Amino acid sequence: MPTQRPIITLTTDFGLSDHYVAAMKGVICSICPDAAIVDLTHELKPFEVIEAAFTFGEAWRWFPKKTIHVAVVDPGVGSARRPILVEAAGQYFLAPDNGILTSALTTEKVKTREITASQYFLVDVSRTFHGRDVFAPCAAHLATGVRPSSFGKLVIDALRLRLDKPTQTSKRQWSGTILKIDRFGNVITNFRLADFPWLATNPFEFTVGFEKIAVLAGHYEQCAYGDFYAMTGSSGYIEIVLREAHAGRKLGVAAGAPVDLMGWANA
Amino acid sequence: MPTQRPIITLTTDFGLSDHYVAAMKGVICSICPDAAIVDLTHELKPFEVIEAAFTFGEAWRWFPKKTIHVAVVDPGVGSARRPILVEAAGQYFLAPDNGILTSALTTEKVKTREITASQYFLVDVSRTFHGRDVFAPCAAHLATGVRPSSFGKLVIDALRLRLDKPTQTSKRQWSGTILKIDRFGNVITNFRLADFPWLATNPFEFTVGFEKIAVLAGHYEQCAYGDFYAMTGSSGYIEIVLREAHAGRKLGVAAGAPVDLMGWANA
Amino acid sequence: MPTQRPIITLTTDFGLSDHYVAAMKGVICSICPDAAIVDLTHELKPFEVIEAAFTFGEAWRWFPKKTIHVAVVDPGVGSARRPILVEAAGQYFLAPDNGILTSALTTEKVKTREITASQYFLVDVSRTFHGRDVFAPCAAHLATGVRPSSFGKLVIDALRLRLDKPTQTSKRQWSGTILKIDRFGNVITNFRLADFPWLATNPFEFTVGFEKIAVLAGHYEQCAYGDFYAMTGSSGYIEIVLREAHAGRKLGVAAGAPVDLMGWANA
Repeated sequence: MPTQRPIITLTTDFGLSDHYVAAMKGVICSICPDAAIVDLTHELKPFEVIEAAFTFGEAWRWFPKKTIHVAVVDPGVGSARRPILVEAAGQYFLAPDNGILTSALTTEKVKTREITASQYFLVDVSRTFHGRDVFAPCAAHLATGVRPSSFGKLVIDALRLRLDKPTQTSKRQWSGTILKIDRFGNVITNFRLADFPWLATNPFEFTVGFEKIAVLAGHYEQCAYGDFYAMTGSSGYIEIVLREAHAGRKLGVAAGAPVDLMGWANA
Repeated sequence: MPTQRPIITLTTDFGLSDHYVAAMKGVICSICPDAAIVDLTHELKPFEVIEAAFTFGEAWRWFPKKTIHVAVVDPGVGSARRPILVEAAGQYFLAPDNGILTSALTTEKVKTREITASQYFLVDVSRTFHGRDVFAPCAAHLATGVRPSSFGKLVIDALRLRLDKPTQTSKRQWSGTILKIDRFGNVITNFRLADFPWLATNPFEFTVGFEKIAVLAGHYEQCAYGDFYAMTGSSGYIEIVLREAHAGRKLGVAAGAPVDLMGWANA
Repeated sequence: MPTQRPIITLTTDFGLSDHYVAAMKGVICSICPDAAIVDLTHELKPFEVIEAAFTFGEAWRWFPKKTIHVAVVDPGVGSARRPILVEAAGQYFLAPDNGILTSALTTEKVKTREITASQYFLVDVSRTFHGRDVFAPCAAHLATGVRPSSFGKLVIDALRLRLDKPTQTSKRQWSGTILKIDRFGNVITNFRLADFPWLATNPFEFTVGFEKIAVLAGHYEQCAYGDFYAMTGSSGYIEIVLREAHAGRKLGVAAGAPVDLMGWANA
């Protein structure tokens, strides 16, 4: 077997029709030609940090220790927001300090550094493209063996988003939110079945948009076409789904919209 | 030269804006860090198994022996449909048993196994994401050297789609179908020039939508702008094309629509 | 560290929903299994060679020496246009001779060859898919160590696009053009701040569509929402931007549209 090559993953809102992702890959290949570059996604919604934090959070946890992740959704590029390097769960994370790394920052034994060692940046740092000029070269230098401590000093105030858990608003009511509408139109809520196990056996009613959903399905083949169902998604969150159709569009909702639950936990 | 790394290709309808493909890559990297992961496409139309079977069929045949392919378009995920592992043409294929592997299953000397060895699955298998929980880890274990026979027993009844050849409906008439509209708008029919060689020399008339096409062009520069032509595509199928324009949209047709041919084979 | 693997990048207008890119990757893996295949972009606008030349030009320059680039936007496939192999800046480029390689051809010490050595093509070369049948296999053979001179004879008349610089139309006026609208809606003009350094300090007015832009911003956080600004993009060109919104759509312009500048270089 060949020696293992360092893995660098890329997550951005740059899309794939421009040269931006390509330039980042070129910078990485130039500094660390042995790196295996893995695209996670470049189709995050521009500037939507909350949705990006959710999506990236569900992706990085499957990677092995020592993986280096670069995550750039960065509406504040060029302003005072800091670039940070996070060590968490045995992996490395480089990103702007705007909350996109919330899922890593909320694990145990996290080390966060402000990246200040400009000798690892490209020589001319643009004001608008830190993905190419700061994050890609620092990730590549890290992959070649530069120690994390060389990139800057520890900080303790990195920004964490409150990826809201639902809040209980009365004895039988909870108020939550939509984390994301995925490509299939599944409406991913922030209710976890693990936190509401009684949903599997007791009567309940979700309200999303103008619809009420009161049936929990186990998989799609149990669903009648055209009806909404609640279903536990692959990330553990309750999703509102339509069989082979786009639930989000039919409900007319988007990420951030409210999800209300009424139920009888002790029925 | 370094030792050759195992190649694992990924084909899905998961799109690139969610975390689904990224999670599959993470699982593969965790089990077999040396694998070279190659994206074939993740933009297949959701749930459209026939079009997926065509697209995947035109892709895998170019890969070298021992390549491991994972193909997941899976409207029946979580139901009784089986995961299968196919050995064909010296390559390996992991997919749901729903017809997406038809092109591999119709080659010679095929071995098909039902994947049942749950020790190679992720520990908690979700009901909705077998790409991550079943197919990705099994492909990665196969890449590390686990033998195909370890994944399950041989079966002989894997599902094959009838990717229709045209049927002759009278002495001079054939009835076919559209396999796919590609990104350029080329309308790929299921007529192969190899099966209808007389189209190159004899008069003919295709009917697609409300248009009749009676000229076979050799390449795009022979085509007048704005006129429809028949042309042999790179897969050997006759395509209906418009020079630098979207034939499918202008014809108002989609995959599955009928294509009629009238012609004089012995003119 | 493992031995360095050859890098082959792919740039096309093939999109990602068809089998075309996948087939090219399969051909490369079959001939040179050790190659690291890096996707630059496959979402270039179909047939738009000028925009492709700009995008590819901003991508390849970040890659290390010996990188092999395949760039296929090819409205003339199957016609008399030549396939070429270019050596420039220590890197290799394979493409149709239609101007897409302009940025490489305009560097110093360029060697250009017409690719004629059909022993490196696939056996059956289709008329419509030279990406798979000509460019991918030649790139892979080059990666395995075949010398550039083996692919064909030197030529000196490869096509270069005039990626227009602005022209001065009066003492205080210049007439330029839009090179590209990027995914964020930034309108990339062909005015370089390096050529118009006085824009940073003197009064000026750009006219794009029906709007006049007279303020140069340093980064997005300096911009009021809803107002247009000029800003130096990461490639050195002046861009017209809207903070967190799509300037190109709001201006109603596309690549190729005029950009006029009035200013007082010696104010």
